[in-house]
Amino acid sequence: MSLIVQKFGGTSVADNHHLFNVAKKVTDLHSKGHDVIVVVSAQGDTTDKLIKTARSINPNASKREMDVLLSTGEQISISLLCMAIEKFGFKAVSLTGWQAGFLTDSCHYSAKISKINTERIKKELAKKNIVVIAGFQGIDENEDITTLGRGGSDTSAVAVAAAVKADMCKIYTDVDGVYTADPRIVPAAKKISTISYDEMFALSNYGAQVLNERSIEAAKKYGVEIEVLSSTSNNSSGTLVKDIPNLPSNHISGISLKNNLVKVLISDINQKTFSENIAPLLKNIKIENSLKPVGKTSSGSTTFVIKEEDLPQTIEILKNHLKDENQIFYEKNKSEISIINLFGSYNINTASIVFQALSESEIETEMVACTNNRVSIIVPSSYAHKSLNIIHSKLFEEDNLI
Amino acid sequence: MSLIVQKFGGTSVADNHHLFNVAKKVTDLHSKGHDVIVVVSAQGDTTDKLIKTARSINPNASKREMDVLLSTGEQISISLLCMAIEKFGFKAVSLTGWQAGFLTDSCHYSAKISKINTERIKKELAKKNIVVIAGFQGIDENEDITTLGRGGSDTSAVAVAAAVKADMCKIYTDVDGVYTADPRIVPAAKKISTISYDEMFALSNYGAQVLNERSIEAAKKYGVEIEVLSSTSNNSSGTLVKDIPNLPSNHISGISLKNNLVKVLISDINQKTFSENIAPLLKNIKIENSLKPVGKTSSGSTTFVIKEEDLPQTIEILKNHLKDENQIFYEKNKSEISIINLFGSYNINTASIVFQALSESEIETEMVACTNNRVSIIVPSSYAHKSLNIIHSKLFEEDNLI
Repeated sequence: MSLIVQKFGGTSVADNHHLFNVAKKVTDLHSKGHDVIVVVSAQGDTTDKLIKTARSINPNASKREMDVLLSTGEQISISLLCMAIEKFGFKAVSLTGWQAGFLTDSCHYSAKISKINTERIKKELAKKNIVVIAGFQGIDENEDITTLGRGGSDTSAVAVAAAVKADMCKIYTDVDGVYTADPRIVPAAKKISTISYDEMFALSNYGAQVLNERSIEAAKKYGVEIEVLSSTSNNSSGTLVKDIPNLPSNHISGISLKNNLVKVLISDINQKTFSENIAPLLKNIKIENSLKPVGKTSSGSTTFVIKEEDLPQTIEILKNHLKDENQIFYEKNKSEISIINLFGSYNINTASIVFQALSESEIETEMVACTNNRVSIIVPSSYAHKSLNIIHSKLFEEDNLI
Repeated sequence: MSLIVQKFGGTSVADNHHLFNVAKKVTDLHSKGHDVIVVVSAQGDTTDKLIKTARSINPNASKREMDVLLSTGEQISISLLCMAIEKFGFKAVSLTGWQAGFLTDSCHYSAKISKINTERIKKELAKKNIVVIAGFQGIDENEDITTLGRGGSDTSAVAVAAAVKADMCKIYTDVDGVYTADPRIVPAAKKISTISYDEMFALSNYGAQVLNERSIEAAKKYGVEIEVLSSTSNNSSGTLVKDIPNLPSNHISGISLKNNLVKVLISDINQKTFSENIAPLLKNIKIENSLKPVGKTSSGSTTFVIKEEDLPQTIEILKNHLKDENQIFYEKNKSEISIINLFGSYNINTASIVFQALSESEIETEMVACTNNRVSIIVPSSYAHKSLNIIHSKLFEEDNLI
């Protein structure tokens, strides 16, 4: 008999049909004699709808009240899932974040879990109840409700698995595991049976959306093994995320993709002036500054990449601090493709393979970063899917290339 | 400076327009220097929708999980109302039932408040925050979420007013006070400026829907004065519900109405057999057994009145315990009109006035109860509104009749 944490995202509990599907997976596991803790997100697009309602009342609503509002989404899911489990004749008990003992800091909207008091969870498990916990939420030391930020339910699942010393944390998603690239874009992508925490973190950090990054950090810190599985198919083998010592230095983990990026160019400013005077002003903007332009560039200009959502704020800051706002140029609809190789003494080689393959298909690489854990390139988004398939083909579908 | 509790029902917070209307009333009061506690219900038909969703998953869902689900309705209201108040530039803090210290028994779906720990509420008032509390909910000693049953937010408001020793509990509804009859049915109904707890309780108990009965009991017990006001109009005078010593014995408080009743007749059974053998089996069904048939009746039959929602269960019980199911007759669509006179030594006189007035209009009174606090009659629902107007006219619009 094992103690197993199962986590289901919003799509997996979106409606009655999906709830009963989840209830089946939960009760099947419980029927095998395991103790089961289930962590769930809000149904479907509930969180987005609640945010929209809040903004229609007050776009500057306090984050404290936003958290009170958003936390209702998971509270609805846990009660409905328990009702579906009860319908199958099993005993279930739902616990909100505070009932389940999730204590966090007071950073509303992106709180960090500080501790889980597992007393109540253990009491319910001892009564042979299936314990259904609201992900994404907790309370701070003032007993105010907090939420953990987007993807926070993954972190809730890993944290509770660590706190109760669960044997396994199964995270169910809309894909049936971690692939060498997103299989919805690259049909030839291969499922990875086992991947290390660090590889998974890098893939997530550069765009893979299978697992939330903070959940991977927590899993590594507490040694929680995660299995990524499909919430809909019954294929039992997914991807195991765990500690893997001695990963070979030429091991390419996979290829990830980020869209909705903007390339910003500032003319008539050299790199030194930019770094010393402008970059500090942009400290709240996430800049991919390891990326450098490919090909001829004016030495008197600086180019960097930001998320499209940060563009208005970036332009405002630049306008206020540059001599002339005509120095600012930007191009939207850029994508970043990242080839993850954590111990990449071969990354220059990988980069050259990528460049050559793309140029054979007449795709221009606009920017590149060769670091010791990855190669990243910037291409126009209209070429992103094609580029991803070409690169995947060269790196994963041909033998002995690197 | 006073400490005032304001309570707003579901209709009053149904959408953004209504929320801002409530925020205006709350901040106007706060601006006058008062400490303000606001208690709100779930928006519009939220609770009904949640119940419908739950039933679609599991009609026999546990009441514990129903309470987890339903309590989200008020949690959404409190956060949205705080956002609207913040928009007006005031400081507000929302508190769920458990955050506000509402402790209840464990009777899920119709819990009773056992105690309110007012520490958190007082702390927020001391910070000059407007405190917005989720009505209808609390937690039991296991820290499980409970709800107080329909109309429970009124009880929450009165209970918190008693606990913090508020100077006044203002309950805002869709009418602008308590009337001698429902003014939507009887246009000539008069607003009552002051009414005693006992009169208000009797009116509610026999059908008036202005205030929840348990809230009136609580108000009487703790001496909380309630003002019933309109949530939409700015007419400042409503109805005051308070202790009134020495009510005159011929004082008719008002007329209330209950619809959706069923008259059940069992033939070939005398009253004694019914009382001894059948009535105990119906102990979970609310029977209006002070009502007796008017006119000729077979001495070998028994007639009583129940709510239509209890009909299926009543018939099932009767079928199982009567010799012959053909003994059961019932007529739906009955209404009960009750004239409240708490110290009614004149109730026989009142009854005769009612009978005469209705017979002049050729309305047949089917059943009647003359007790020492009221006269109740049963008429077909199709005649209920007409009867109510005739009775109101005789008792409140003609001089010196009784």
